[in-house]
Amino acid sequence: MLTYHRLKSEKLPLYDYEPWQIREKTFTIRNNHHNETIFSLGNGYMGLRGTFEEDYQELTGQSTPGFYINGIYENEEIIYGEFAPKQPKYYQTMVNLMDWEKINLYIEDEKFNMLKGEIIDYERVLNIKKGYLKRTLVWESPQGKKVNLDIERIISFKHIHLGAIRYEVTPLNFSGMIRFFSELSGDVKNHHHLRNKRALSIIDKGIKDGKLFLLMKTNNSEISIGCNIENTLINLNDNSITKTDIVNKKEIKEVFEIDCKKGRSYQLEKLASFYSSKDIPKEDILYQCEQDINLILKNNGFSYLKKEQVNYLNNYWKYSDVQIEGDKSLQQAFRYNAFQILQSTGRNGETNIAAKGLSGEYYEGHYFWDTETYIIPYYIYSHPEIAKKLLSYRYKILDKARDNAQRMKLKGALFPWRTINGKEASGNFLGSTVQYHINADIAFAIYKYVKATDDKEFLYNKGAEILFETARMWLSLGHFEKLKDNKFCINEACGPDEYKPAANNNCYTNYMAKFNLQFAVEAYKELKAKKRDKLKEIKYIINLFDREVSKWEKASNNMYLPYNEKLKINPQDDSFIYKEDIDIENIPIDQLPLVNNWHPLTIWKYQVIKQADVILLMLFMGDK
Amino acid sequence: MLTYHRLKSEKLPLYDYEPWQIREKTFTIRNNHHNETIFSLGNGYMGLRGTFEEDYQELTGQSTPGFYINGIYENEEIIYGEFAPKQPKYYQTMVNLMDWEKINLYIEDEKFNMLKGEIIDYERVLNIKKGYLKRTLVWESPQGKKVNLDIERIISFKHIHLGAIRYEVTPLNFSGMIRFFSELSGDVKNHHHLRNKRALSIIDKGIKDGKLFLLMKTNNSEISIGCNIENTLINLNDNSITKTDIVNKKEIKEVFEIDCKKGRSYQLEKLASFYSSKDIPKEDILYQCEQDINLILKNNGFSYLKKEQVNYLNNYWKYSDVQIEGDKSLQQAFRYNAFQILQSTGRNGETNIAAKGLSGEYYEGHYFWDTETYIIPYYIYSHPEIAKKLLSYRYKILDKARDNAQRMKLKGALFPWRTINGKEASGNFLGSTVQYHINADIAFAIYKYVKATDDKEFLYNKGAEILFETARMWLSLGHFEKLKDNKFCINEACGPDEYKPAANNNCYTNYMAKFNLQFAVEAYKELKAKKRDKLKEIKYIINLFDREVSKWEKASNNMYLPYNEKLKINPQDDSFIYKEDIDIENIPIDQLPLVNNWHPLTIWKYQVIKQADVILLMLFMGDK
Repeated sequence: MLTYHRLKSEKLPLYDYEPWQIREKTFTIRNNHHNETIFSLGNGYMGLRGTFEEDYQELTGQSTPGFYINGIYENEEIIYGEFAPKQPKYYQTMVNLMDWEKINLYIEDEKFNMLKGEIIDYERVLNIKKGYLKRTLVWESPQGKKVNLDIERIISFKHIHLGAIRYEVTPLNFSGMIRFFSELSGDVKNHHHLRNKRALSIIDKGIKDGKLFLLMKTNNSEISIGCNIENTLINLNDNSITKTDIVNKKEIKEVFEIDCKKGRSYQLEKLASFYSSKDIPKEDILYQCEQDINLILKNNGFSYLKKEQVNYLNNYWKYSDVQIEGDKSLQQAFRYNAFQILQSTGRNGETNIAAKGLSGEYYEGHYFWDTETYIIPYYIYSHPEIAKKLLSYRYKILDKARDNAQRMKLKGALFPWRTINGKEASGNFLGSTVQYHINADIAFAIYKYVKATDDKEFLYNKGAEILFETARMWLSLGHFEKLKDNKFCINEACGPDEYKPAANNNCYTNYMAKFNLQFAVEAYKELKAKKRDKLKEIKYIINLFDREVSKWEKASNNMYLPYNEKLKINPQDDSFIYKEDIDIENIPIDQLPLVNNWHPLTIWKYQVIKQADVILLMLFMGDK
Repeated sequence: MLTYHRLKSEKLPLYDYEPWQIREKTFTIRNNHHNETIFSLGNGYMGLRGTFEEDYQELTGQSTPGFYINGIYENEEIIYGEFAPKQPKYYQTMVNLMDWEKINLYIEDEKFNMLKGEIIDYERVLNIKKGYLKRTLVWESPQGKKVNLDIERIISFKHIHLGAIRYEVTPLNFSGMIRFFSELSGDVKNHHHLRNKRALSIIDKGIKDGKLFLLMKTNNSEISIGCNIENTLINLNDNSITKTDIVNKKEIKEVFEIDCKKGRSYQLEKLASFYSSKDIPKEDILYQCEQDINLILKNNGFSYLKKEQVNYLNNYWKYSDVQIEGDKSLQQAFRYNAFQILQSTGRNGETNIAAKGLSGEYYEGHYFWDTETYIIPYYIYSHPEIAKKLLSYRYKILDKARDNAQRMKLKGALFPWRTINGKEASGNFLGSTVQYHINADIAFAIYKYVKATDDKEFLYNKGAEILFETARMWLSLGHFEKLKDNKFCINEACGPDEYKPAANNNCYTNYMAKFNLQFAVEAYKELKAKKRDKLKEIKYIINLFDREVSKWEKASNNMYLPYNEKLKINPQDDSFIYKEDIDIENIPIDQLPLVNNWHPLTIWKYQVIKQADVILLMLFMGDK
C-alpha cells in the first residue's frame, strides 16, 4: 500500500506551523480537493470531508463531497483481463453516503458564493486540540451587502452517531431578508472505483415532526443506512421566521426565511444522526436516529456536543500527546497525524482503519496490514483498549481468513490483503494474495500488545487461535528444501516491497514467519502450562494435534534466513541483488511514481523498492 | 498457450484408424460439439465448423455453428481487476460471421431431423486426401418415408473466397413434394470471449439476380464482410420447381419446392463467396462476391470446385505426406494434422495461424509463437513458400512490435504474445508481455528458413531488419551483472513454461537470446560484406550504429547460461530447482488441468511445468 503522490497544485507549506491547529488563511478554489481531505472530520464510526456548506461542486468541478460510515461498502463483481482460477470474486468499496452538510445562504436574492463578490476576511481552522472545524469570514456580496459568517462543524467522538453544524450570520451593513436552505440529499454517487457509481437506492424519505429523514440501501451488499436531521434557529421566536419544507425526488430541504437586523447574529444549528443495519436491525434505524437527536436537543444541542468533544480530546491528548521542541513542523505533523488516526479508527471490534481513513474514497475504505504494523504500536502505548479492539477485528474475521487459506490450498488462516468484511477484495492479480507476511504482522502485533499490557486473557481467548491458524498457514506455504540444507524456504511471496512480488525467500517474510511460528509454539506451551482447559477447547475447535506444533517448531528453528556472505548483507530475497541497478536520478519527473507509469515488469527488473522492506525488518527484528 | 483438455464425453478412439479419412459411423448428438471441430473445413482464408445443414442448435444446445475469416476480429476494451500502467488496451477477438451452410429439408410436411424418425444407414467422412466432407445416410421419417441423402461440402483451396455444398435427395419409397430451405443468416453471435457477443451489424441484405447477398460490419473494429450465395437445382427444368424468396430482418431464404419421383435423385448446389474490407475496398465487396460465383457457375459449379480441390491436394501431399508403417493411429494422426495445418494457415503475408485454426473461437483466433516454433519448421521442408509468407507476416507487424517494445521501455521490437493485427491483445497480467523469447523464436525460424532455402533475398530485405530490432530488444532487456562475473543476465522473463513467469535467467530464454543476438551480428556482417547499400538503407531507417552491433556481440558472447555444477543439469531458471516437489500422482483428477483450478501462485511454488521448457531448448540447441 501507501503510494506517494506529489501535490502538484501548490508548494508546501500550505499552512503555518502552529502547535494545535491547521489554519487556512485564504480561500483558494484550486486547493479545494486537497483541503477537503485535510479538513475532514471523523470519529472512527463516520467521516465527513471538509466540503463547504455552500455549493461549489457543479460550478467548479473543484469539489468532491464525501460522507462515509466505516465498514459500509458496496459489492461489485471483479472483472479480470483474463480468467485465472481462485481469484477474489467481489470488490468491496466504501460507499459515499447521503450528503447532509449542505447549507446554502441567500441574502435577499443573492446566493452566498465565495467565488463571487469579495472576501474581506477569511480563516478556516481545524482545531486539533478540541476537535472541531471553524470557518470565519467577512463577505461582501456583488450588490454590496456585507455579512460576517461563523461556521463550526463537529463529528462527535463521544456520541459517535452524531454530527453537527452551527452556522452564524451577522449582517454588517444592512437589514433585510436572509434565507437558509438546509439540505439532506440522496442524490449521491461514488467518485472512484465502482463501475456503477450509484451504489445506493432511496428507500424512504420525508419530513416528520420537524425532522428530515432519509433511508437508503446499497444495491448489491444490501446494507441500510438512515439519517435524521433537525434544523434549529437559536433564540428566535417563530414569528420572525418563515419555514418551508421541500421534498424532491432525491433530496429534502428546509428553507428558513428571516427578517434580519443589521448587527445582530442569527444562528442555525443542524444536528444529524446516522445508523446502519450493521449497528441495529434495519427496521429500527430511523427511530434510533430520532432518539439520538432528541437526546442532544434536550441537552442544549451544539454547545453540548462541543463541550463533550473538548472533554473527550482532553482525555485523549493526556495519553497521546508528544511534545517536540525545536521543530514546529514536526510538532504540528505529529499532532495532526495523532488526531487523524483517532478520527479514522473503528473502535467497535467490527471495523478497522481504512487506508485513507474516512476522508476519501481512494483505496476503497479498505483495511490493510498497515493497521498492525504502523498504527497499533501507537495505540498499544497510548490507548491499549483501542489496540485490543483492532486485534479483536482480526479474530472476528478469522473464519474468512480460513476460507482465504483454503482458496490457496493452504492450511490454517491467511488474512486478506485488502478487506472490509473479512474477504479478500482486491482485483490485483498478485497483490490480492501474495503478501503472506500479513499473517506474521498480525502475530507480531499480538505479541507486542500482550507484552506491553500483559493482557493474557486476550492472548488465551483470541490471540492463541489466531497464532495457531497463522502458523499452520506458514507450514503449508513453505517447505524444507533439500538443495538448501533442508532449511525451511518460502517461495513466491512478496514482502512489504510490492515492486518484487513472488520472490523466493523474501528476508522480511522469512524472519517474520519464523517469529510467527515460534510465538505460536510459545503460546501453545503457555496455554498447556497455565490453561489446559482452554487449550483443549481450542485444539478441539481447530482440530489441532501436538505433532503439528512440533513441526512449527522445526520450521521456525530451521527457517532459511537470507544472508550474503560476500556482501555481508541480508539481501531482500534470493534474487534482488542480481537485478539491474536503476539510475533513479535520471528518471523524468513525469514518470513518477513508477507504479503509475511503468509496466510492472519494467519495474520488477530493477533494484528499486516501493516500500521499505529489509529496513522495516531491521526495525522489528534488529536484535535478531 | 496449448492447454490440454480431456475429452469427457467419450472414450477414444471415436473413429477407426484409416489412412486417408476420418469417418463417423453413427450419429451421436452428444459428440456433436467435438465433431463440429473435427469435421471443420478451411483453406487458410476462411473456415467453417462441421455443423450439420439442418437445425440442431436451438433444439439440443449441442451445436456451436461457426464461420470465420482469418484475421477478421472485433475490438473490445480490456477491463482489468486493478489498473496497472502500460497494459494492453484492447482485445482482438475473431468474429463468428454469417451462418451460410444451413439447408433444411422438408418431405411433404415432415422436417428432416436425425433426432426423429429412424437412421437406417449413416456415415460422415472427412476425406483428407481430396479435401471434402461427405455425409451419406438413409433416413426414415416418423411417417415412414424413406430418403437417401448425400451431402458434400467443400471450402476451396484454390478459389479461397468460395465454399460450396452439394445436397442430394433420393426418395426411396415414395413420390411427393420435397422442399429445400436454403438460408443465409446474419443472426449470429460469438460463443466465447466477447462481453458483447453480437459483434456484427447488418449493413445490407437481399436477393438480387437470383443471388442472396448480405453485407455486415463489425461494430468496433469496423471491418466489412460480404457474402453472395447462389442456389442451383441441377438438371431440373423450371416447370417442376416452385421457388419462393424470403427476406427477414436478419436472414434470407430461398425455398425450392419440387414434385419428386420415387427413385430419382435431386441435387441442390449452394455456392457461397466471401470478401472483406481487408481484401478489397468495402464498396466492391458484394460485386466481387458476385463475380466469383459467376466464374464458378460458368465452369460447372460444384464438380469443378471438387476437381480443383483434388488437384490442389494432390500437389500438397506430393510434398507433404509422410508414410508411417506399423502404426495406423500415427499415420492417420499425421495426415489429419498436416491437413488441418493447411486448412488453418493464412498464406497472404497478412494473416497467420490461429491457435485453434479456423475451427472454433477459443484463443480468439490469435496468432502465437507456436507458428514459428511448431509449424514453420514443417513448412520450411515441405512448402517453403508458405513459411516465407508466415515470416513476412512478422515483417508486416514489425512497426507494431516496435510500439510494443516502447510500451515496456525497451529498445527495438518486441513481438506480441497474442495478436491478430500486430498489437498485443492479451488481458493476462503477465502473460501479455513476459514471454520475451518470442523474439528469439522468430529469429530462429528465419535462420532455419534461410538455411534450408538459401533465400538470401528474404534475409536481406525483411529478415535482417527483424533480427536487428529483436537483438536491440534483448540488449535493453538484460544487463551485465557484476555479481555474476559480468555475465549478461535476463531477469523477470518467462520461458515456454507459463507456470514460471517472471523468473531470472530462464535457460531457454537466455540460450535463444544468445542465438538471436549472434545471428543478428552475423546477418549484419554478411550484409556488410555482400550488400552494403541495403545495409546502409536499413541502418538509416532504424538509426543503427556499429557500436550497437558490437554490444550485441558482447552480450551474446557473455550470455549467462544456467548450469548447476552439483546436479549437472541446465536448470530451467535461477530458482526452479529450489521450488517444492509436487506430488502429481495424488492430485485429484477434478483439479486438472491445474491452470483452470489452482490459483497461479499455488502452481508457481511447485516444480511443475505447463509446457516443455528446457526440453524444447534441448531440441533446438542440443548441440550447444
